[in-house]
Amino acid sequence: MLGILKRDPIERLRKALGKDKVKTSLVERKLYSYDATPIPVERSVPRAVIFPETKEDVRRIVEICYEENVPMFPRGAGSGLTGGAVPTEEKGVVISFERMTRFEVDVDNATAVVEPGVITYEFQNYVEKLGLFYPPDPSSYKYSTIGGNIAENAGGPRCLKYGVTREYVLGITAVIKEGNVLKTGNPILKDVAGYDLTKFFVGSEGTLGLLTEAILKLIPKPQARATALAIFDDLRKVGEAVTKIMTSGVFPSALEFMDREAIRAVEDYKPVGLPREAEALLLIEVDGTETSVREQIGQVKDLLEGMNVKVDVSENEAEAERIWTARKNLGPALGNLRSGKINEDIVFPRTYLSEALPELREIAKKYDLLMAVFGHIGDGNLHVNLLYDKRNREEEERAERAVDEVFELALRYQGSITGEHGVGLTKKKFLKWQFGEEGYELLKGIKLLFDPKNLFNPGKVVEV
Amino acid sequence: MLGILKRDPIERLRKALGKDKVKTSLVERKLYSYDATPIPVERSVPRAVIFPETKEDVRRIVEICYEENVPMFPRGAGSGLTGGAVPTEEKGVVISFERMTRFEVDVDNATAVVEPGVITYEFQNYVEKLGLFYPPDPSSYKYSTIGGNIAENAGGPRCLKYGVTREYVLGITAVIKEGNVLKTGNPILKDVAGYDLTKFFVGSEGTLGLLTEAILKLIPKPQARATALAIFDDLRKVGEAVTKIMTSGVFPSALEFMDREAIRAVEDYKPVGLPREAEALLLIEVDGTETSVREQIGQVKDLLEGMNVKVDVSENEAEAERIWTARKNLGPALGNLRSGKINEDIVFPRTYLSEALPELREIAKKYDLLMAVFGHIGDGNLHVNLLYDKRNREEEERAERAVDEVFELALRYQGSITGEHGVGLTKKKFLKWQFGEEGYELLKGIKLLFDPKNLFNPGKVVEV
Repeated sequence: MLGILKRDPIERLRKALGKDKVKTSLVERKLYSYDATPIPVERSVPRAVIFPETKEDVRRIVEICYEENVPMFPRGAGSGLTGGAVPTEEKGVVISFERMTRFEVDVDNATAVVEPGVITYEFQNYVEKLGLFYPPDPSSYKYSTIGGNIAENAGGPRCLKYGVTREYVLGITAVIKEGNVLKTGNPILKDVAGYDLTKFFVGSEGTLGLLTEAILKLIPKPQARATALAIFDDLRKVGEAVTKIMTSGVFPSALEFMDREAIRAVEDYKPVGLPREAEALLLIEVDGTETSVREQIGQVKDLLEGMNVKVDVSENEAEAERIWTARKNLGPALGNLRSGKINEDIVFPRTYLSEALPELREIAKKYDLLMAVFGHIGDGNLHVNLLYDKRNREEEERAERAVDEVFELALRYQGSITGEHGVGLTKKKFLKWQFGEEGYELLKGIKLLFDPKNLFNPGKVVEV
Repeated sequence: MLGILKRDPIERLRKALGKDKVKTSLVERKLYSYDATPIPVERSVPRAVIFPETKEDVRRIVEICYEENVPMFPRGAGSGLTGGAVPTEEKGVVISFERMTRFEVDVDNATAVVEPGVITYEFQNYVEKLGLFYPPDPSSYKYSTIGGNIAENAGGPRCLKYGVTREYVLGITAVIKEGNVLKTGNPILKDVAGYDLTKFFVGSEGTLGLLTEAILKLIPKPQARATALAIFDDLRKVGEAVTKIMTSGVFPSALEFMDREAIRAVEDYKPVGLPREAEALLLIEVDGTETSVREQIGQVKDLLEGMNVKVDVSENEAEAERIWTARKNLGPALGNLRSGKINEDIVFPRTYLSEALPELREIAKKYDLLMAVFGHIGDGNLHVNLLYDKRNREEEERAERAVDEVFELALRYQGSITGEHGVGLTKKKFLKWQFGEEGYELLKGIKLLFDPKNLFNPGKVVEV
């Protein structure tokens, strides 16, 4: 009996880290047993929540948990939408990185070294004051963490021009099996030595090890931006317009789409004067020097007016901000329509959009649900929102079945089941479809190479 | 005896593919036994050279070679500089992709599907006529292949702004162990489903399987460019100038550096009027719309003149081309100085440059060699050229020993042993230093997962 008590992993963790870093009250354990995933997922109350403050803390945690066979569920801000940060085993512990928030910027080298708990928005503000720019902009950027963004390979509107989180990670330090420390990359922009473990770690959703530090790439901050709003009375013209813009020599820093339901939802929520009768809107942003943004947005306007599309160019930053606020209000605006909302982030090759959109509407019709579509049309990443009454279990189930068909549709069109949110728990069953037998076997093999005991975020992404 | 003959793998390959695709004359086997690597490497004459024409050909080749334990050495144009395409086993075969040159561009989706043998330059020209742009620009782009570029994760001057080859590969089809076909990715710009096998394949130098197709991302073609030449009388000012430019809101599409030896070599070779007495030059290119490039280059000029640096802005494309020709002449110009030239592509965090450059000069002095340095200073990727007399074996050996110290220096400064050329044969021994024990073990594990018999480009990158 004494022997068993001695080997209690929570006691060992307390001893190694100090009491303040290992919490076991039911309130705390319950607080850390969920994330922002909108649909019910398997979930357990963990046996403890651990708050490492240093790399060495993380190394000790992994060492002990690996010895004691304790599953580890890493967590950033818990803003994920696919259950990535949800603990699924009672014997597991949640590792919250909220106390690891240090970062250091090397202006001359245009790189930064960050801990996983740094809030993306705070980091972005900081570097912009130095004339630098960290582009990845998931909707959650005001509260999500760099660690979470790296785990999910997060993206947002600006990623059309600037790429996703992966493009900005130059190196990582992570603790993998048995507490071993893996260090990859360097504060340099080019490195082709050996297989690229750095980029491989990005988007692995905490299943290969625990990130303790990342080296990030920064780029020059654009001096100015300009925004145009294009109003379409015919959905089929949208795809043509996107192609024309993208082959005109103008590289938009964002190219966003809203369908009629989305426009109306925003206008019902907080009116900004969007045209309620339009079939669709495109929001086009360009950035660069002061003069060049005027020039570029002028070219976009001419090109769209040549297609008989009405275009409003924002005359100043305040006007642009008003339009972008409408775009950012979409989440709460749609949430306002019904008590339940499933927001899926499928991707289509953007050329298929005119075919796929009507098919999406068919799915909504078949399951008798309200659907609103918006998203990053420049890169084909659409947010398909299925709205339902949460108190109506039967309707909720219909919504979940409809989501399955949405994924099938994306894969049929050579798309992806996720452009931003990751696989986590909710999309696991579709991953095998997307990778095929051969690819899935490799994913499993790689997972076991990093984590032979399957203790890092087990049950997420790949089943081993 | 009959049994052995029946199992002759070359006979099986001939039967499966047809005689025309399997060559065994000594001339051909010798022709395909080398690449552009400037220093002596281990090398064997292969038993055959195979020319697949379709994906199915490649699948059959791998199936047979995997059964018969025949090592496979894939080859693009053979323009690599680290021995990546060199066969090292007599029982092995070279697989040349020169007949797989089909490609298809989807303008509306801004993607392309390409076979590995496509010449990068031809592909770039084709897409630029459609208003699109494929940025990766290794010096070898006029003859190197997309397949080779993917294998090495190639880059060039434009990669400062636009990223390396990896950033443009959205998906691959490859034949891995036993002839199994691995298909990853899709013609979409964002995809975070599962571990990123696509990007992982890029830069793996043919050691994980044989690439048969890639899906590439294209971006809008910039409308104009402008070039400035900055002349420095003090090496230490160069780093400061680079930082000022990179935090000014201007994002150069290239930022190239030449030291005094490099300047003089070019002027001796084909004079273009570069200042022979300068300590160093920066070549700064910006791109964008017609007006914006004037504006940006003006900002760069003002900023540098504020530092008392002399700046010449090219008034037109012809003048810019003249300067860029000087930059591109560097290779042959340096080759002209001595019969032997080792061009190493080490990377430093660019802030260390002012410290590292004098140390590089010390190495040259220690080994009594002529050294010229130029390269992509914006991303810290320098080409360190050691020049020697090829007929003087003693001097050649000194050059090889000096290279070892150059690599050590790069690693001491948190840099990399290669920013562009890859590891291949020549940098193998340094890879372990860069990855450490933990990282190297993972590389080995991953290699064996894709290729348990170690038949894909064996002996390159990682020793298993």
